[in-house]
Amino acid sequence: MRLVVIGGVAAGLSAAARARRIDKFLDITVLEKGEWVSYAACGLPYFIEGRVRALDDLVLYAPDRFARERNVTVRVKSEVAAIAHSRREVVLADGAKVHYDRLVIATGARPNLAGIGGRNQERVFTLHTLADARRLREFLCSRKPKTAVVVGSGYIGLEAVEALRTNGLKVTLVADDARILGRSHPTLSKAVLDRLEQFHVEFRPGERVRKIEHDSVAGIPCDLVVLATGLKPNVELAQEAGVETGRTGAIRVTDRMETNLAGVFAAGDCAEAMHLVTGRPAYVPLGTTANKMGRVAGACAAGARERFPGIVGTSIVRTCGLGIGLTGLTAGEAKAEGFDAASALIEAPVRPSYYSQPLGIPHTQVELVADRRTGKLLGGLVLGEEGVAGRVNVIAAGLHLGAKVDEFAQFDFAYAPPFAPVWDPLLIAAQQLAKRI
Amino acid sequence: MRLVVIGGVAAGLSAAARARRIDKFLDITVLEKGEWVSYAACGLPYFIEGRVRALDDLVLYAPDRFARERNVTVRVKSEVAAIAHSRREVVLADGAKVHYDRLVIATGARPNLAGIGGRNQERVFTLHTLADARRLREFLCSRKPKTAVVVGSGYIGLEAVEALRTNGLKVTLVADDARILGRSHPTLSKAVLDRLEQFHVEFRPGERVRKIEHDSVAGIPCDLVVLATGLKPNVELAQEAGVETGRTGAIRVTDRMETNLAGVFAAGDCAEAMHLVTGRPAYVPLGTTANKMGRVAGACAAGARERFPGIVGTSIVRTCGLGIGLTGLTAGEAKAEGFDAASALIEAPVRPSYYSQPLGIPHTQVELVADRRTGKLLGGLVLGEEGVAGRVNVIAAGLHLGAKVDEFAQFDFAYAPPFAPVWDPLLIAAQQLAKRI
Repeated sequence: MRLVVIGGVAAGLSAAARARRIDKFLDITVLEKGEWVSYAACGLPYFIEGRVRALDDLVLYAPDRFARERNVTVRVKSEVAAIAHSRREVVLADGAKVHYDRLVIATGARPNLAGIGGRNQERVFTLHTLADARRLREFLCSRKPKTAVVVGSGYIGLEAVEALRTNGLKVTLVADDARILGRSHPTLSKAVLDRLEQFHVEFRPGERVRKIEHDSVAGIPCDLVVLATGLKPNVELAQEAGVETGRTGAIRVTDRMETNLAGVFAAGDCAEAMHLVTGRPAYVPLGTTANKMGRVAGACAAGARERFPGIVGTSIVRTCGLGIGLTGLTAGEAKAEGFDAASALIEAPVRPSYYSQPLGIPHTQVELVADRRTGKLLGGLVLGEEGVAGRVNVIAAGLHLGAKVDEFAQFDFAYAPPFAPVWDPLLIAAQQLAKRI
Repeated sequence: MRLVVIGGVAAGLSAAARARRIDKFLDITVLEKGEWVSYAACGLPYFIEGRVRALDDLVLYAPDRFARERNVTVRVKSEVAAIAHSRREVVLADGAKVHYDRLVIATGARPNLAGIGGRNQERVFTLHTLADARRLREFLCSRKPKTAVVVGSGYIGLEAVEALRTNGLKVTLVADDARILGRSHPTLSKAVLDRLEQFHVEFRPGERVRKIEHDSVAGIPCDLVVLATGLKPNVELAQEAGVETGRTGAIRVTDRMETNLAGVFAAGDCAEAMHLVTGRPAYVPLGTTANKMGRVAGACAAGARERFPGIVGTSIVRTCGLGIGLTGLTAGEAKAEGFDAASALIEAPVRPSYYSQPLGIPHTQVELVADRRTGKLLGGLVLGEEGVAGRVNVIAAGLHLGAKVDEFAQFDFAYAPPFAPVWDPLLIAAQQLAKRI
């Protein structure tokens, strides 16, 4: 009985490791087209920044170590050219064939660069693989560029802005429109724009970049360009084998991570996940979800019955020192989904005002969204320099568990002056929102 | 229609403010025996430490300002001697009588000093009122004591240790037994004891202090003594009027904060709260609960129908830089309550290991407890220097909402390198625990 896993990063290696735990006799082969397996792609911006000192620090397992410790065959530089499901075979680019009984497709995603010309220049970068990061860091260190343009205001774009600004470059952020993290949200936009301004980063929305000129982008002269225009799931290989994709364009899976082909599973950035707030599959390619999906795919491929219930769309990013946490739906998204959405936005200090600090008490903004019909929470936004992850995680737990906003407003949250004010910002926001329901 | 509130600190003033919001014509009188109303008792240790510069910073409202802004009669230095409920009258110590239609008893608690002799010395302190804090701070500044003994390893004791140590005193912590925060919990004890040792604070358990000598406590010479031996609810006034107390010794209330006497409510440190994990009333006198109970008592006394569902026993404290968050039940407590409790304790870094920091990545310890019969979470402990409040609040939300540990292990928590590792410590703990259920 052989399990073949296509892709050796977050989802693929999670699947292999989990399958091994479930069945110690299973023959497991991981096929990875790149040189490395199991690297922390989310750490790439921090390698660019210089905080992660060596690229190797981002590699969690050397291929041979993973292979040895988990008794898994790991073949790097092994690109799969086709899946011949009727014969239960994958065909490698070099023509070699590998039989499988069960297959996990963890082919990930790639930067979506459609329609951007002139990108094959030495000073143009994406930030998706270790090789990308190495090339960019080397360029920074050897060429000492002074000016950069980052194209795209999603996670990678915002993280790249921080990383380049920390390296002393003059940075301009260019985006198709004024949305930040793909959301039209005035509070979020204002907070990010204010912060970019404080950090002397110029934001130029409304610039759809079609071509990168020799010395400029969108008329902005620059020594360096980072393209961060979003991700596109790598589904072509699967599609050609008859695996169905969903409306999001990513691979459609059950809660056992199985595709429409029996015995073929998919996980990670190539697959959809059920969004538990909308009740519909969504495409939210993030590392933590990839790991969870990979575990379940590996377990089920090895014969266990596990399930991945889904996501609530939680994400967090830091740019120029500002933490941005999002979970569930914004009010606008909730309305578009047909909810009778109400929202409340508050700003409050993260500790009591008397707990003096040299630079004053940091504030946080919390927005909660709920459905008037059911009273249930639908989402939340947390902005600030402290406590962002903790608070957005509390909201995420509430979304998973179907919390009603009036009960949430009475939750027994921790209070002591070094940690929080007596009315936690979450409680204040929930109280405000409860009045509008 | 007159509402009388006995007690003008957290619960009392919350009740008065909330009642005013509900009914703008209600005649509201607050009777406070002390000089101040509405002060942040939880801030007292930080005034002792010196971080809170002026005692006034802890006073949220001057009595006249609260009276003016809320249109409430506030009478300070007005101690109530008796409640004559049959006549709907409270009798003040000076003999004056105040009629009420509705009554909120928010008489708070007092330090439990039973059986400790020799405590009326100038160098012996409790830390319960603004006057206590002022006297202690003045003593620190004028007498420059070099050595201190803190008696009691509860919240106030641990906070007092930190405050005095920060002021350069040699501090010994003395307690009846080896329990920390009233819990027999090896992990908690070890973490606190290790931290005390690092901060050169000696811990002497097994010393039941019966008498404070002229120059020593329990044989330990010292210039200063802080007694932090727990709180006792102020219920005598209520009891004499026929208000019933529960098994905890505090006033028994409904979820509308009403006592057994119709129209008489109780809230704050003098009252019980429903513990939603045990399903039985508990006595957990904390500021955040007092505020919530006070709001509901005020609302209901003013004729609204609100309810306070209860607490899950969340608390947080910092001592010598270590954050300690607790919610729900420890494994030991859960077993004593008849649950078939399982627990899992993990230690994990709060960020990915590659996200380098000058002092290394701080670790956190997370323990989760669940019931084998239902799979539901029963409690959690979080220890560390970062993220303690956020993580304990997530567990608290899970307790309020009846989370099962296997679903909790799949929650969509925020991940990005500056904030959390890809597997949040909460998820790791839940995965470990799920295996034992």
